[in-house]
Amino acid sequence: MAEDTLGITVGKKEDFSEWYTQVVTKAELADYSLVSGCMVLRPGSFAIWEKIQSHLDGKFKETGHKNVYFPLFIPESLLTKESDHVEGFSPEVAWVTHAGDSPLNERLAIRPTSETIMYDSYSKWLRSWRDLPFLYNQWCSVVRWEFKYPRPFLRTREFLWQEGHTVHETQKDAVEEVMQILHLYRDTIEQEFAIPVIIGKKTEKEKFAGADFTTTLEAMMPDGKALQMGTSHHLAQNFAKPFGLRFQGRDGKEQIPWQTSWGVSTRLIGAIIMAHGDDKGLVLPPNVAPLHVAIVPILFEDTREKVIAAAEKLKTSLNEYSVELDLRDHKPGWKFNDWEMKGVPIRIEIGPRDVDNNQVVVARRDTGEKQTVAMDDVAQQVRSALEEMQKSLFDVQKKFLDSNIRDATTIEDLKKNAEEEKWSSAFFCGKEDCEEDIKEKTGGITTRVVPFNADSGSCLNCGKKGPQTYFAKAY
Amino acid sequence: MAEDTLGITVGKKEDFSEWYTQVVTKAELADYSLVSGCMVLRPGSFAIWEKIQSHLDGKFKETGHKNVYFPLFIPESLLTKESDHVEGFSPEVAWVTHAGDSPLNERLAIRPTSETIMYDSYSKWLRSWRDLPFLYNQWCSVVRWEFKYPRPFLRTREFLWQEGHTVHETQKDAVEEVMQILHLYRDTIEQEFAIPVIIGKKTEKEKFAGADFTTTLEAMMPDGKALQMGTSHHLAQNFAKPFGLRFQGRDGKEQIPWQTSWGVSTRLIGAIIMAHGDDKGLVLPPNVAPLHVAIVPILFEDTREKVIAAAEKLKTSLNEYSVELDLRDHKPGWKFNDWEMKGVPIRIEIGPRDVDNNQVVVARRDTGEKQTVAMDDVAQQVRSALEEMQKSLFDVQKKFLDSNIRDATTIEDLKKNAEEEKWSSAFFCGKEDCEEDIKEKTGGITTRVVPFNADSGSCLNCGKKGPQTYFAKAY
Repeated sequence: MAEDTLGITVGKKEDFSEWYTQVVTKAELADYSLVSGCMVLRPGSFAIWEKIQSHLDGKFKETGHKNVYFPLFIPESLLTKESDHVEGFSPEVAWVTHAGDSPLNERLAIRPTSETIMYDSYSKWLRSWRDLPFLYNQWCSVVRWEFKYPRPFLRTREFLWQEGHTVHETQKDAVEEVMQILHLYRDTIEQEFAIPVIIGKKTEKEKFAGADFTTTLEAMMPDGKALQMGTSHHLAQNFAKPFGLRFQGRDGKEQIPWQTSWGVSTRLIGAIIMAHGDDKGLVLPPNVAPLHVAIVPILFEDTREKVIAAAEKLKTSLNEYSVELDLRDHKPGWKFNDWEMKGVPIRIEIGPRDVDNNQVVVARRDTGEKQTVAMDDVAQQVRSALEEMQKSLFDVQKKFLDSNIRDATTIEDLKKNAEEEKWSSAFFCGKEDCEEDIKEKTGGITTRVVPFNADSGSCLNCGKKGPQTYFAKAY
Repeated sequence: MAEDTLGITVGKKEDFSEWYTQVVTKAELADYSLVSGCMVLRPGSFAIWEKIQSHLDGKFKETGHKNVYFPLFIPESLLTKESDHVEGFSPEVAWVTHAGDSPLNERLAIRPTSETIMYDSYSKWLRSWRDLPFLYNQWCSVVRWEFKYPRPFLRTREFLWQEGHTVHETQKDAVEEVMQILHLYRDTIEQEFAIPVIIGKKTEKEKFAGADFTTTLEAMMPDGKALQMGTSHHLAQNFAKPFGLRFQGRDGKEQIPWQTSWGVSTRLIGAIIMAHGDDKGLVLPPNVAPLHVAIVPILFEDTREKVIAAAEKLKTSLNEYSVELDLRDHKPGWKFNDWEMKGVPIRIEIGPRDVDNNQVVVARRDTGEKQTVAMDDVAQQVRSALEEMQKSLFDVQKKFLDSNIRDATTIEDLKKNAEEEKWSSAFFCGKEDCEEDIKEKTGGITTRVVPFNADSGSCLNCGKKGPQTYFAKAY
């Protein structure tokens, strides 16, 4: 980062979209590539993705899931086997037509999602109820050639994700899996990424192409828009039937299994940036921060060695955390700004006088608080600051979410709430045509989530009975 | 696995190729997909890949490397910027030409390797010597649309790998990086995967398309063929020049940096299968085995609960290892065969009499040895058996490698040695046309590796002076 381009030049509240773009590029998280709509994940964001993977992968394995890898390519004939599914995805498919100089016999889709290629194999592997459940997941990239304006992490033509694809003996088992994963996602997103979500079902119009029902986790971004953080789908037998999944049941008869699929993506990195960042740059919740502590020594020629020795000793004493001692050839002020930009939770400053007094200065990224701490107390101070910061970031977001939802009983309410960057809570019939009508009347407000066990009332648009539903503009 | 297809029906020595195919499919490691030449990595092999990743990624990070992710797609104009490189790869490139119904303005290659797309970004990021080195790596899949006969793990059109791509201030730094990675690969392959390798340089003919020189690690497979286990390339300034990588040096003047690239792939899984497997199936070195111990309880109706309780207690006592208690609805003999097929290093059998006598039977996968062990000694016995097995598997392979290399001073020697499934050690001039000539005369024998600090002598084909070089048929 050159000295002259340091610092974000717009406020988060002033121009949220420009602020986001500047954080992404100036904190060196991602960069544009020569392929329109495809991003480079630089070390700064990939390390966050590794933390996200580590949290989720651990929980997937604890709950009996195993990782696999299926081909990137899906033959056209396979992609088109489930009619709702192909209708949903084919407009965005990237097609491979040639290898070297030779045209292929059949076009190959780059996977937009892997239901079709996976379930073709599943149909070969499944024979008996003894084989079930299949609890498989893969971490990979997918391609959806959208023509809307791309935004780093939020909408790119290629992105990284995980996709779980399970097969169960009974419908009850499949529904339990859908809910288990939804709760696992919620706990991880709230506890590790410090972002509160509202969980529930998608409407018929918004559900996954091919699902029986889709459950979702919706977060509120600082501009009042909703961000879908992940989804967990009950596929019922919608894919099992066309893909020929059959097994011999406990009763000896041939049965059709029940399936689920579920996923989260690098979009979560976008959510973390948007939710927690401030005018100085990125702010990372400690549980997802690749680096917990940056030690910046204040170096003068005559005391240089003494300070570095003390800083190195300090680093060693913090070995339960991820710590970097910043010896780069830059001034301390530049380094302070750089670590703030990159969102490192704790900065420790140590200069010659600190060494003489056996103390350091500990600065917390989210609040900016600085405290002078005796050397012996630093490890304890770092621990409590990280814990407090993790909790505080969540609390701030929770308060924001709770205080930005308003009731709506008319279309005018919906529009007014969205204009004021609020979500709406309203009764809604759930019908596709009524939802289309609302979207058109409001210039793009859509249903986001129908909470579980919602109360019922008269639809704000057509008056028919329906459950409480959240409406918002969405990313 | 159905009861009737259990077991491998050919000996490893009898029909090596068929044996390999049966191990891959019957141990449920990989499966064919509807896309010709592309494989599905089932949980059994993906878990091995995760162990390989974990060993290597840890070492990459210890040596200062960071992970990144670059786009899957490479615009045609970028792929063709370095002329040797494009010549090497373009015949095997899969081309994306359409998105949805729309033709693209420019064809996009699916990455066969990422030098070109990465170095385009590097040229934007690099400004000063202070930015160097760039030490970046990515784990991803690559596509090379080969038309040769595909073999699981060894030659598939899509495969998983890691590719490191570094940039250095000086040639010396770059060469040191090439060697550091080569040694890191060697140590991991020998110590963790128990496969000895010969390291050295590739000849001009065999080097990477675009490299100044390529270093390699070559292993000997049971049929006497060589398998290239990984490569680490010195790219010199061959890419830096056309891709416009420039930086302000310590002297204030503009300089061109030096680069390396290096990689290993899922081919390593193929090597592990081939090297260590036997007529009963897969044999996994403990350091790369996802599961260390399978506990098979011998269950009878009247003592079932007692045995399961003892087996669960045993499992808990082995919690420093990865252990599975096999309660599947199958007979013990079937389970023994299944775990042997899957290569689990240790099997523990526990029946009602064992419980009464406070003992179990511990069986080691590689030797087949079975020992009755007192319950209190099981953890110690498992530890020493795993250590011995790890060492023994390497020793067996080392002896095999050392005893199957013969000197060759004529083309006839080369042919005879290869027919007898041996490698040849010969003096070779290193010239491309001489190597082509040898390959043609011998029906496909090629140079594999020129060891470092090799002696010199007269080329076995042309008589010119050249270093000691290993020749073999190769996968």
